[in-house]
Amino acid sequence: MTEPYQLSVAQAASQIRAKQLSPVALMESLLARCAALEPRLKAWVTLDPNGAMESARQRESELMREGPRGPLHGVPVGIKDIYNTQDMRTTCCSPIYADFVPDHDSTAVALLKRAGAIIMGKTVTTQFACGDPSPTVNPWNALHTPGGSSSGSAVGAATGMFPASLGTQTGGSVLRPAAYNGVVGLKPTFGRISRYGVYPVSWSLDTMGTFTRSVEDAALMLTVMAGHDINDSHTSPRETADYSQAIGSHTQPRIGVLRTFFFERCNDEVLRHTEAVIDSLRSAGAVVEDVQIPVDFDTVLAAQRVLMSVEGAAVHEENFRTRADDFAPVVREMIEMGMITPGVTYVQAQRTRRRFRREMEQAIQGFDVLLTPSTPAAAPRDRSTTGDPMFQAPWTTCGLPTVSLPSGLNGDGVPLGIQLAGAPFDEERLLGVAHWCERVLDFTLTPVG
Amino acid sequence: MTEPYQLSVAQAASQIRAKQLSPVALMESLLARCAALEPRLKAWVTLDPNGAMESARQRESELMREGPRGPLHGVPVGIKDIYNTQDMRTTCCSPIYADFVPDHDSTAVALLKRAGAIIMGKTVTTQFACGDPSPTVNPWNALHTPGGSSSGSAVGAATGMFPASLGTQTGGSVLRPAAYNGVVGLKPTFGRISRYGVYPVSWSLDTMGTFTRSVEDAALMLTVMAGHDINDSHTSPRETADYSQAIGSHTQPRIGVLRTFFFERCNDEVLRHTEAVIDSLRSAGAVVEDVQIPVDFDTVLAAQRVLMSVEGAAVHEENFRTRADDFAPVVREMIEMGMITPGVTYVQAQRTRRRFRREMEQAIQGFDVLLTPSTPAAAPRDRSTTGDPMFQAPWTTCGLPTVSLPSGLNGDGVPLGIQLAGAPFDEERLLGVAHWCERVLDFTLTPVG
Repeated sequence: MTEPYQLSVAQAASQIRAKQLSPVALMESLLARCAALEPRLKAWVTLDPNGAMESARQRESELMREGPRGPLHGVPVGIKDIYNTQDMRTTCCSPIYADFVPDHDSTAVALLKRAGAIIMGKTVTTQFACGDPSPTVNPWNALHTPGGSSSGSAVGAATGMFPASLGTQTGGSVLRPAAYNGVVGLKPTFGRISRYGVYPVSWSLDTMGTFTRSVEDAALMLTVMAGHDINDSHTSPRETADYSQAIGSHTQPRIGVLRTFFFERCNDEVLRHTEAVIDSLRSAGAVVEDVQIPVDFDTVLAAQRVLMSVEGAAVHEENFRTRADDFAPVVREMIEMGMITPGVTYVQAQRTRRRFRREMEQAIQGFDVLLTPSTPAAAPRDRSTTGDPMFQAPWTTCGLPTVSLPSGLNGDGVPLGIQLAGAPFDEERLLGVAHWCERVLDFTLTPVG
Repeated sequence: MTEPYQLSVAQAASQIRAKQLSPVALMESLLARCAALEPRLKAWVTLDPNGAMESARQRESELMREGPRGPLHGVPVGIKDIYNTQDMRTTCCSPIYADFVPDHDSTAVALLKRAGAIIMGKTVTTQFACGDPSPTVNPWNALHTPGGSSSGSAVGAATGMFPASLGTQTGGSVLRPAAYNGVVGLKPTFGRISRYGVYPVSWSLDTMGTFTRSVEDAALMLTVMAGHDINDSHTSPRETADYSQAIGSHTQPRIGVLRTFFFERCNDEVLRHTEAVIDSLRSAGAVVEDVQIPVDFDTVLAAQRVLMSVEGAAVHEENFRTRADDFAPVVREMIEMGMITPGVTYVQAQRTRRRFRREMEQAIQGFDVLLTPSTPAAAPRDRSTTGDPMFQAPWTTCGLPTVSLPSGLNGDGVPLGIQLAGAPFDEERLLGVAHWCERVLDFTLTPVG
């Protein structure tokens, strides 16, 4: 029998709406799951079971009195601990903010609450969402990294601690941990979801994203959070949509396989696996074509590092002046690098990004999506690293929306995945195709019993 | 009797459409005007009378054979010499580009041509649209600066060399020369008109704008050029409009008089004049209210200089390495300043701009427009300067649209003006109110016979 903790967002929300499932029973099941797994997996920074149960009871009584608030009524969500949550500690996993309790919700969190979701608690991030490893454990194999920076959100979604969670991606912090932990990661177009109230890594790169166990759930989450926000000048005024309408809408997608860089830099295992995935997609009816583009991805990655480090140095400038020793080594190195980078270098990195964005917008024309392996290798057997973001960072840099889908396990029993990129602000098509691919891939394994 | 060179864009275009005016006769009249004035005023870099006449004959025969191409059919326009024009020299008034002939049109120029306008020639800019004085002469009083950087476009529109022209504004390069020369200057919202194919000063500030002798003409020009352009990633996807519909649409505007900074930094003459203008507007039915906002405009101006100099240094980096001595002193100083500015300083300037934009977006709520004097003083009696851009630069920095209207002459016989700012992407309202104010001000003087 299906336990409530195993339900997807879509299933849980529809059963709650139909009063076949109580938000209280769902929360109890999830909390029991957390109690069983958390001591080993360390996905949480802040989880207050009493508070979570109280919220569930409130949603239940709201449901009975007034009906559902919105499409996520009663659905618990895990929030990366850099999103401000009113009256709930937001630490960035830094000693500097160990006791920081915001007086407001980030826009994304406020929208989730308005849709009826329950903010279950705050998940582990690497310090300030950068590259220092976190204590979180990969549920597939504890010797391997769970990735970063959104490690707690990825692991919690993979193991049924919650059906969905929020992460952020500046380099590869949503899709990489999604791939390493065998869940669906969505990074929408830059500008689609407000970053207001989220502790920045880098204003011009930071992109909000989700972890779910299905593409349909990613679409539901995006529908609730997408939109222009006067408090984030980078959000786009473009129309949003009910993205769940895209689910089931696609047949025989046109897939461009982006061989440049991605097929040269992955290991043999990933290469073979990705070729096998492509064969299955083609057999299932996809129109698949190889794409080679004359882009120097190493230059793009260098530009991404310059943008991130200079903006990161500006973000942390004040704290770093007085509390440098409270920063973890990788963040610290980023800040120090940013501080000695000339303005002209930064601006040239912006130019590189603009050129690259145009090139990628052109490259995707004629295709529904571009496909690459999600990562150059499965999660490394090395807990001193969070893995290599180089297959995500180009997409964060150009701002195109991406989805990572779990597509198999390697010999160590850790997941492999494929990454799909869509045209800017065309998340409907990207999610429609991702759902089509998800059904072909039919990945149903879970890491723990 | 009205000579054709005295016609506005709207008048010329409608008479041409009605076949009451020949594009050839119009061009002849304008060229005669240029021949008479150019030796003294030096508004042109490139004016080929034979080519211009040939274009006019083509438009005439098109009109007869196929009817008008678009709303500007047969209307000659002057183009600042940093806009690329296919097969027409584009020098930036720099020795480095003295012989540069682009193989394509900038988007703005292409859109003008598509609407039927005739590219009459290229007007004088200060070198690379920066602060070094140009040879152009103020037609009201040759001892005073005509302003910069779009000096030729401003002077040519003021004196009937053409009914409309294009400029660009990074600090104050459209509205300042518009005010100094007694014409209408329009700087739309940042992102409204594509900058593709225009030699940059600074990517994040450069804004395309127009010089005309009426608000209605500014609306016509904007209607033709506004819109998203895949070649300029900063252009907005927001809907554009037929802005000429705004003309005559406004009654009794709500005007916020922005006293902070602008009324503290202008001279007595400008202060008295602006108060008199406000009285007339109020008498005519405007609802006028003082606005004080807690913004440190000096910090904003410092941020604007950092953004401009760092981006400017990046623009000129390559040429400067090999040909530093070919740069004029003010451009050179800007580049050298930009080169030693740290990336973090640049990024903090971006933050200052984002905060300021939010503050100004809030300040304008409840008003149709904010009003200030156009400049702290009329055109200085000093040809070694292009005047002070400090009343324009805040608006270029926050990206809000602005219009300058001529409102009178000072004791030296040089013009004074008022500047109106509108809400972002609400050029319709701004132009509607500007037109209402224009009728109240009723400024009908011209500088030369």
